[in-house]
Amino acid sequence: MTRFGKQPERAIEELGREALLKALKDAGIQRRDVDEVFCGSLFGGTLIGQRILRDIGMTGIPITNIENACSSSSAALREACAAVAVGRAETVLVIGIDQLTRLGGGTIPLEKTDIEVNLGFAMPALYAMRARRYMHETGATSRHLAMVASKAHEAGALNPYAQFQNRLTPEEVLASRMIADPLTLYMCCPTGDGASAAVVTTQKRAEARGKPVRVAASTLQSGLYKTGFRDMATSELTVRTAKLAYEAAGIGPEDIDVAEIHDAFTSAEMMYYESLGFCGKGGALGMVERGDTGIDGAKPVNPSGGLLCRGHPVGATGVAQICEAVWQLRGEAGKHQVKGAKVALTHCTGGGISGLDHGACAVHILTT
Amino acid sequence: MTRFGKQPERAIEELGREALLKALKDAGIQRRDVDEVFCGSLFGGTLIGQRILRDIGMTGIPITNIENACSSSSAALREACAAVAVGRAETVLVIGIDQLTRLGGGTIPLEKTDIEVNLGFAMPALYAMRARRYMHETGATSRHLAMVASKAHEAGALNPYAQFQNRLTPEEVLASRMIADPLTLYMCCPTGDGASAAVVTTQKRAEARGKPVRVAASTLQSGLYKTGFRDMATSELTVRTAKLAYEAAGIGPEDIDVAEIHDAFTSAEMMYYESLGFCGKGGALGMVERGDTGIDGAKPVNPSGGLLCRGHPVGATGVAQICEAVWQLRGEAGKHQVKGAKVALTHCTGGGISGLDHGACAVHILTT
Repeated sequence: MTRFGKQPERAIEELGREALLKALKDAGIQRRDVDEVFCGSLFGGTLIGQRILRDIGMTGIPITNIENACSSSSAALREACAAVAVGRAETVLVIGIDQLTRLGGGTIPLEKTDIEVNLGFAMPALYAMRARRYMHETGATSRHLAMVASKAHEAGALNPYAQFQNRLTPEEVLASRMIADPLTLYMCCPTGDGASAAVVTTQKRAEARGKPVRVAASTLQSGLYKTGFRDMATSELTVRTAKLAYEAAGIGPEDIDVAEIHDAFTSAEMMYYESLGFCGKGGALGMVERGDTGIDGAKPVNPSGGLLCRGHPVGATGVAQICEAVWQLRGEAGKHQVKGAKVALTHCTGGGISGLDHGACAVHILTT
Repeated sequence: MTRFGKQPERAIEELGREALLKALKDAGIQRRDVDEVFCGSLFGGTLIGQRILRDIGMTGIPITNIENACSSSSAALREACAAVAVGRAETVLVIGIDQLTRLGGGTIPLEKTDIEVNLGFAMPALYAMRARRYMHETGATSRHLAMVASKAHEAGALNPYAQFQNRLTPEEVLASRMIADPLTLYMCCPTGDGASAAVVTTQKRAEARGKPVRVAASTLQSGLYKTGFRDMATSELTVRTAKLAYEAAGIGPEDIDVAEIHDAFTSAEMMYYESLGFCGKGGALGMVERGDTGIDGAKPVNPSGGLLCRGHPVGATGVAQICEAVWQLRGEAGKHQVKGAKVALTHCTGGGISGLDHGACAVHILTT
């Protein structure tokens, strides 16, 4: 992956090229070894995959672009796995990419036809409302939300690919300006630019590479958009998607050694600890207080710095989580390495249309 | 599918809903029978598939949006086939959709970073240049180009889903205003709105339905974007993609009873007769003169009216071709039925970036 961050001076295709070249080098393969490509992006524009690959002379192969909001490249990875599993391709390249600074300074164009969004129900407002409900139900405080951000910065400071590489105390997080009560600036992920890439291949080819990582589950679900009562303090979509992933992999949440989850806002990270089964309802408070989800904690979450610090160039995030998971499982994560990680979970969920739940949630489980 | 045409007063989601309800009814299945959905669109905006399905209560299943320019929904169909083949889903819904009238009156926003497009090398100019070269090499005249349009209108007049349902003589086509020499207005496909949908399932389930149509080949390729000499009068990309499709299906071009091909401009239709192997280089002239590709001809092409008359709401076209092919193979095409059709080919190619060849070409072969 590229380092994430604001890079408006670069062409988006150049970001993609940097990531894919690194992926090919890491996999020890040449351009001609790639049979097919999937590219996940939200704002990349038409034929983003073809535009990246054209620049690098990788032409004449099947290329398919996938858009699933924040889960765009996670969904692309799922199709790549299917292409290999069905025997259509032996080696598939997956790219995730977006360049949010080219959209006018970081404001994401929202869906014009969504009446709730037009009335102000943008992402920070949506997450803030759910955060308030979560605090009401569990007794979580703003300080818990700040501690999650502080933990993310602790990790980001160790990750050379992270957009933010500075440490912040909970007090500093609480003192940053209010975005949508109770969420202050540093409780929200930044906008930025970046690209990520991964190579998916058969077991045989991967084993020849030396340190293969297995995709034990690749699941995608969409929200229910039910009318009537909904539990705003739980992500039904994440619960359901994770359940399918655990079943597919034949493991449970207790087996996860390291997780990269969708912490677009710190309140969401706490809710997802519970939705992913890392603890029971309200259990996230204790996990945060004890530091369980720090790199050296009992259940390390987002050792990369997560969306909060590694950054969140929307389409690039899903595969960036995969990059981090692969490095962790190979023991190549450097200063932010989780010791002895053998099972990793990634969770990416996007598109808060209709206010209360997401359009596309992807959970992957990777094992050594 | 919906009727194609200018429908700016309808919400795009409503177009999609109409098409998908027709597809479910045709397949004799309920909403709950659908395991997974792919939606192909170029301009539909984020989570277009989720937005369509939310409106109809089809929630909580995997939904993936695919963008491959004109081939968006063809590429979506290919992923649907893979999802069934790999056993991930038993019944998959594929939607194609776009609403070009919502983009400011029919002008398609072109890729801002493509220097050639910015210098005026838009689609009509690109096709006109290739048409001139084709005329130079083969002796084709403007009258040939007009006859192709006239044939399309002859078919469109019989198709209740077509945007244009009027007959036009070659003289009327030649007399219409010049768009990009040698292409006059009626030699160019129109902009419009529409949606299409298809259901892909296992052989067993399809046979229970009564009139199953088999996907014998589903191929996708991208252009080569080579520098140096290129034969502008041949579509290397179409030749290559069709070759793979014929190999996969174990048949040759002589076995095709009916074809739906990407006649965005009449000159392209003639070139594709040759690229698809329906005749040798320059052979398209004779095919046009003899009327071979009319509905009752020796090699019927675009009995639907094609992009020229059925219309071309970009993302909707690929699956609309599939709808037509299925109706033809079932003998349900009504007034535009090709007698005894047992093997159909669809060809959709899109994204003329870098001037000379396309970003994504899809060829499908369907059989009874």
